[in-house]
Amino acid sequence: MADALHAELILTNANLATMSDNGEPYGIVTEASVVIGEGRIQWAGKASDMPEFAASTTIHDCQGQWLLPGFIDCHTHLVFAGNRADEFEQRLQGVSYAEIARAGGGIRRTVTATRAASESELLELTLRRARTLLKQGVTCIEIKSGYGLDTATELKMLRVARQVEQHLPVTVRTTFLGAHALPAEYQDDAGGYIELVCNDMLPKLAEENLADAVDVFCENIGFNRAQTEKVFSKASELGLPVKLHAEQLSNLGGSELAASFKALSVDHIEYLDEEGVKAIATSGTVATLLPGAFYYLKETRKPPVDLLRQYTVPMAIATDFNPGSSPICNLPLMLNMACTLFALTPEEALRGITINAAKALGLQAHIGSLETGKMANILQLDISHPNQLAYEIGIDPVTQIWHQGKMVTP
Amino acid sequence: MADALHAELILTNANLATMSDNGEPYGIVTEASVVIGEGRIQWAGKASDMPEFAASTTIHDCQGQWLLPGFIDCHTHLVFAGNRADEFEQRLQGVSYAEIARAGGGIRRTVTATRAASESELLELTLRRARTLLKQGVTCIEIKSGYGLDTATELKMLRVARQVEQHLPVTVRTTFLGAHALPAEYQDDAGGYIELVCNDMLPKLAEENLADAVDVFCENIGFNRAQTEKVFSKASELGLPVKLHAEQLSNLGGSELAASFKALSVDHIEYLDEEGVKAIATSGTVATLLPGAFYYLKETRKPPVDLLRQYTVPMAIATDFNPGSSPICNLPLMLNMACTLFALTPEEALRGITINAAKALGLQAHIGSLETGKMANILQLDISHPNQLAYEIGIDPVTQIWHQGKMVTP
Ligand SMILES: [Zn+2]
Ligand SMILES: [Zn+2]
Repeated sequence: MADALHAELILTNANLATMSDNGEPYGIVTEASVVIGEGRIQWAGKASDMPEFAASTTIHDCQGQWLLPGFIDCHTHLVFAGNRADEFEQRLQGVSYAEIARAGGGIRRTVTATRAASESELLELTLRRARTLLKQGVTCIEIKSGYGLDTATELKMLRVARQVEQHLPVTVRTTFLGAHALPAEYQDDAGGYIELVCNDMLPKLAEENLADAVDVFCENIGFNRAQTEKVFSKASELGLPVKLHAEQLSNLGGSELAASFKALSVDHIEYLDEEGVKAIATSGTVATLLPGAFYYLKETRKPPVDLLRQYTVPMAIATDFNPGSSPICNLPLMLNMACTLFALTPEEALRGITINAAKALGLQAHIGSLETGKMANILQLDISHPNQLAYEIGIDPVTQIWHQGKMVTP
Repeated sequence: MADALHAELILTNANLATMSDNGEPYGIVTEASVVIGEGRIQWAGKASDMPEFAASTTIHDCQGQWLLPGFIDCHTHLVFAGNRADEFEQRLQGVSYAEIARAGGGIRRTVTATRAASESELLELTLRRARTLLKQGVTCIEIKSGYGLDTATELKMLRVARQVEQHLPVTVRTTFLGAHALPAEYQDDAGGYIELVCNDMLPKLAEENLADAVDVFCENIGFNRAQTEKVFSKASELGLPVKLHAEQLSNLGGSELAASFKALSVDHIEYLDEEGVKAIATSGTVATLLPGAFYYLKETRKPPVDLLRQYTVPMAIATDFNPGSSPICNLPLMLNMACTLFALTPEEALRGITINAAKALGLQAHIGSLETGKMANILQLDISHPNQLAYEIGIDPVTQIWHQGKMVTP
């Protein structure tokens, strides 16, 4: 695949954290170069080993700074209207969740606002958030639907998510999350709503090719295992891979079900037990940890990180950016939270937003590491070592971004 | 003081969160204007009440966005060399604190690096951090010494801190923290080191007017109450106000001592008891809460917020930015952490980085609110309500900054 003749741009005088399995922590290669052509990495390695290239090739001197694969936020709810800042304030003033819900608060409020918003309003809101992530070095974003809960709005959300790629130099993967919550219209008819999801929403969005994966919120306050299975069966019929919000607040066995469908990832998983870990280890499913929601909800039960290590389950990290449980549009902060709250090592955390996040999207052949043949989504960082990224919060280390080999001005 | 004839700039079409005591939450005034002249606020209020001004006055249309007083980070250790990312990583890999200390890690490592750094190297590092804060809307930064622990380096740090004002449009207040830790040279002679602080460092920095206040780290792992009192007595002799790192890990009665010296603030105070709260309430001392250090150190004991409310002690919030216990150069994030970790309301948190932070620096007559006569340190923010600032993490709402009436391009 690496054809040296396609060299268009060479990044020289760099240290690489390739995040590949080259036997070094972080896949580090010092005194290195990266050769880019046709939007892909044609070669990466020790500068002294670099093959000869045409003299006309553009050279970018990294001045000894570090190059990393573009960050990947593999779990976001980026498309929604309104915010819930007033509910956040009310709770801190002593108003109960129940009172807020009675007053029309919570997720249903976001659903109402998102249904009411036009596609262009939603796009504008979404682009602001995507631009924020891009500035942080995020070159690939997964975006879920799930604040429509009716066919028209779910499709609208996915169309907005798809449009982001046309406005910003980021790769977007869309996930259909119609089974996120029960809409008011189906208050006492979860079965009827799941039928709508399976027989109306899913066929329509598949026909328009609006979703790259299908997700369900499997929880006591969401959908049960049988309902989840119905959605997954329909998704499989349509050839769409699945993911699952699972084991966040209790253990419903969702992860084992997800494993039986060879799910790309199970997400949250604070209550996952050893049986569940074994199941996802066997199915090759990624464990996506969401420390922002854990922090924001003041949870105490942590995901089973030791078991995930023991069974060598790949761990991804994401923002879960959403207006209720994680209004955190900051992926680098999740590196620190994964270490501070879940005791991941800085290297595990960084794998979580690069190669393992790519796996959680089924994109590991294309992004997530600096290796020949992968898309040239590359960050140049002013750091002394990659472990600094998880340690330090607030100082922006990104000095340059390339998306598909093109320099980005965020 | 407000002389309408001095109007140079008028900010129109704005909503104000003045953070003054005007009877409204956040001191809100809607449909408002602010008149600026000679670097100060000449008038602020309802647009319909605005007096007439010369037609030649410059008008800035805020397009309905919000204006707030510039943020104030009233507790930072911004001047230091090196970082301790590798120690952060080692701890997560299972290396003990004791092993790291034996290998020369911890604060002494920062001291070694800071002593070795030239004044211009330190300035460059400090400016990068100050610029990061400025972009977030921080127009006043308190900066402590305390990584020199010898006279030359303590003075060097304070000179660097003083120089920040010449390079960036921010107001800097310097605090001498020679009694931060015991240097290796005085390993078994804390008394001797306190003598050096009192009889060498303090007179010299006072002569050069390098410090606006004097601070001590009063803790089992720092200096005891008697040693703190010696430093405070000398500071008072020299006419310098005092502050104290107190009651972070245990209760040594430092806050009561600080109160007896009419300290500007006591900082951390997780272990402060009711007697201590009463004492600082009586002395008018501000309680500065540092949720970043609490988060980073995974502490569990929270500051006595209910008692502070009961005795109406003003609460300030700061980053405590430092390379060991709070490598967090992000003041807006502290708003959320103050709410999520310490259960402050969004309004209390915002007072903590505006008017109460000003009080913690003795600057409440000059900054911290949008009121006639105060410095025109003003932020324009793209938010729907000030409560959004504590709720949302990551999305930068700052669209414009004025420092002393001059527009800043951070
Ligand atoms: Zn989610
Ligand atoms: Zn401190």
